[in-house]
Amino acid sequence: MLDHTHAPTAKSWVDGADGHPDFPVQNLPMGVFRRDGGAPRVGVAIGEHVLDVRAALELGLLDGLDPASRQALSARRLNDWMALPAAARKSVRHALFALLDATHPDNARHAAQADRLLHPQSQCELLLPADVGDYTDFYAGIHHATHVGKLFRPNNPLMPNYRHVPIAYHGRASSICASDTPVRRPRGQVRTAAGVDTPAFRPSAQLDFELELAIWIGPGNALGEPVPLELAAGHVAGYGLLNDWSARDIQAWEYQPLGPFQGKNFASTVSPWLVTSEALAPFRRAAMPRGDADPELLPYLRNAEDAATGGLAIALQAWLSTPLMRERAQAPRQLSASDARHLYWTPAQMVAQHTLGGCNLRPGDLLGSGTISAPDDSGHGSLLELTHGGTQPITLPSGETRLFLEAGDEITLTAHCSREGFQRIGFGSCRARIID
Amino acid sequence: MLDHTHAPTAKSWVDGADGHPDFPVQNLPMGVFRRDGGAPRVGVAIGEHVLDVRAALELGLLDGLDPASRQALSARRLNDWMALPAAARKSVRHALFALLDATHPDNARHAAQADRLLHPQSQCELLLPADVGDYTDFYAGIHHATHVGKLFRPNNPLMPNYRHVPIAYHGRASSICASDTPVRRPRGQVRTAAGVDTPAFRPSAQLDFELELAIWIGPGNALGEPVPLELAAGHVAGYGLLNDWSARDIQAWEYQPLGPFQGKNFASTVSPWLVTSEALAPFRRAAMPRGDADPELLPYLRNAEDAATGGLAIALQAWLSTPLMRERAQAPRQLSASDARHLYWTPAQMVAQHTLGGCNLRPGDLLGSGTISAPDDSGHGSLLELTHGGTQPITLPSGETRLFLEAGDEITLTAHCSREGFQRIGFGSCRARIID
Repeated sequence: MLDHTHAPTAKSWVDGADGHPDFPVQNLPMGVFRRDGGAPRVGVAIGEHVLDVRAALELGLLDGLDPASRQALSARRLNDWMALPAAARKSVRHALFALLDATHPDNARHAAQADRLLHPQSQCELLLPADVGDYTDFYAGIHHATHVGKLFRPNNPLMPNYRHVPIAYHGRASSICASDTPVRRPRGQVRTAAGVDTPAFRPSAQLDFELELAIWIGPGNALGEPVPLELAAGHVAGYGLLNDWSARDIQAWEYQPLGPFQGKNFASTVSPWLVTSEALAPFRRAAMPRGDADPELLPYLRNAEDAATGGLAIALQAWLSTPLMRERAQAPRQLSASDARHLYWTPAQMVAQHTLGGCNLRPGDLLGSGTISAPDDSGHGSLLELTHGGTQPITLPSGETRLFLEAGDEITLTAHCSREGFQRIGFGSCRARIID
Repeated sequence: MLDHTHAPTAKSWVDGADGHPDFPVQNLPMGVFRRDGGAPRVGVAIGEHVLDVRAALELGLLDGLDPASRQALSARRLNDWMALPAAARKSVRHALFALLDATHPDNARHAAQADRLLHPQSQCELLLPADVGDYTDFYAGIHHATHVGKLFRPNNPLMPNYRHVPIAYHGRASSICASDTPVRRPRGQVRTAAGVDTPAFRPSAQLDFELELAIWIGPGNALGEPVPLELAAGHVAGYGLLNDWSARDIQAWEYQPLGPFQGKNFASTVSPWLVTSEALAPFRRAAMPRGDADPELLPYLRNAEDAATGGLAIALQAWLSTPLMRERAQAPRQLSASDARHLYWTPAQMVAQHTLGGCNLRPGDLLGSGTISAPDDSGHGSLLELTHGGTQPITLPSGETRLFLEAGDEITLTAHCSREGFQRIGFGSCRARIID
């Protein structure tokens, strides 16, 4: 799985790329950008720049790729690239690496065209990576599920099905937003008081974030044809960050018996850069170890390879800034330090489960991991957990307190992978501000 | 709202259209078809024929329409037509009516081109009417909700929120199927025995149908901008039939705490013909009367016009045939005779609710009404109700019995509207067969 594109010694001719905390040449995350309101193009983050893939195609610098790959890279979204088989996506990675590699024989020719190939990220509008056909949110963060379950069922926080089946529900695709799109506080029906079964109509008073991993589907499967676990990883094109905004008070009143709906569907924010499955190869790890409390899995959910390498080591952070903090030039307050290793299910298990009954996934479909919380207070992935059900406010550097989000509050999610002997790579950020 | 296109005396020059139980000239339902594997085209059902709208455009027979409407009608799906404002869709109806009207001054010229304009339905492949961006299933059939609730909570079948808020959940868009697409029985996790919290992996043994109305969204709304109730009806382009297939055993094990997922997402079948909101104008009726058990609605869910005319009188039927019945040439057994008047919420209330928190609807989005059952045994919209929770088998003309669906079983949903002084119009059928 590992090759020269993962070598810690690899360098790029692009200024500022080497040692960049998120986007060194070992990363090469894919995205979609535009400049000056022009047509969307595929781009790759490199240091503080965006590689204009369309320009590279036009300059003939990616002529070594097969026609289908070149066609996919000239589209206005990543869906066609996602649809490529894993081997073709790997070839794309190698071609992009060669283009940016400081030691490539043609590096001087490449660098000489930097004016056309590179744009400062600050001058690019970063768009949604894909047209999302369907969005599914899993519930694989077991510590989150436990913390939230405890608020309602102190002695029995996890449902009996939790350790047997990767639980998920369908989310709303239309309201998936690019990073930096403001999120309008939803209004809706909420209980007039706790335990009272009479609703009022008002703005949500319990607006929350959720720290999730975005799992972007690559090649799809035909309706009626499940993807077996051993092939499932090949159906994931890459990963990003997902903030699955939640209105807890709306959700609490509406969710029985059919699950979350308007407590969630007003907005979900995704990060612009898709860190490819290939880039993450050095950061695979074992799936969560199974202990005495864990039943034996049904055969379709287990195999030795997935158990050994199906997990991911991705450090995840959530940050909050308020208007007052920004006015005072105070740095965002870190709310959470979590990690993708707290996922009870691997992405491959999620894909195998999702397609088990024959449901078809399509390139560009989005799976949310579910909120990823650490077991302890340092890594709560939502305010619901951080404030213990909205009862214990958190204090901010400005002296302000929060139970839930207020107007102007900005949540930023970040993530990175680091491992001894490898270059650190990062996810950029998933950020949005609340407006009332 | 009513005009000459609704007149019971209207006639068409198309053979077999006058008095056709489903598709007289007063109906003019929109669909998408293709012949001989060619490109999809917009069509209109008229009698036993399909009007080829693309051909009519090419022959210059729809030149009176504005360019945006003509463009929309030449697309390969109905999404662009759905996106037209209600006034433009009405103009399209009038233009189509004029083209098919037996009394139109140009009727001889129109009829002379029948060879190009008309195709027998039997020679057309009827496709999905639209690319469905998002699919939402409501739960507005109060008798179904009550019957199903009673199976689990005999004394308290309806949740406290039911009469306050139109409950819904997000469904799966990718697995929405055109009528006549076979439905493969899903496999999945089910309890090894009732009340036992250990799962087995096997084919669903409780495969069921659900009799629903499909509500097709017309013009969308921007994210963050709710559609108020008084404008909501204008956002519905039309109606069809929806069979929301359900695997009850998979659903029972998976649905806590986030709602139905794999018990539903293996397939949902829709009828090919979209009966327009304009065609249904004569069949509007009062919303379900509110009685002592019904609380006062929050203001955003009530206005006088919706209460007076927001409901629909649509007679709904479900039919079952088995392989043995077909072998014996026995007619399908009618399982259900229900009506859209059993919806607790109007389509306009569903749209207002769905967008209340700012969620954006897009042209071609699909809302399911939820299963529409009559209060009594004659109109159960699912086998779960017909067999009283899978305990009392139904008997078929072949002598066979059923608790749930078996291989080769075919479910057909049909519907029609009739009213004294108006021509009857129908929905065609929504049909699919189970394969194992």
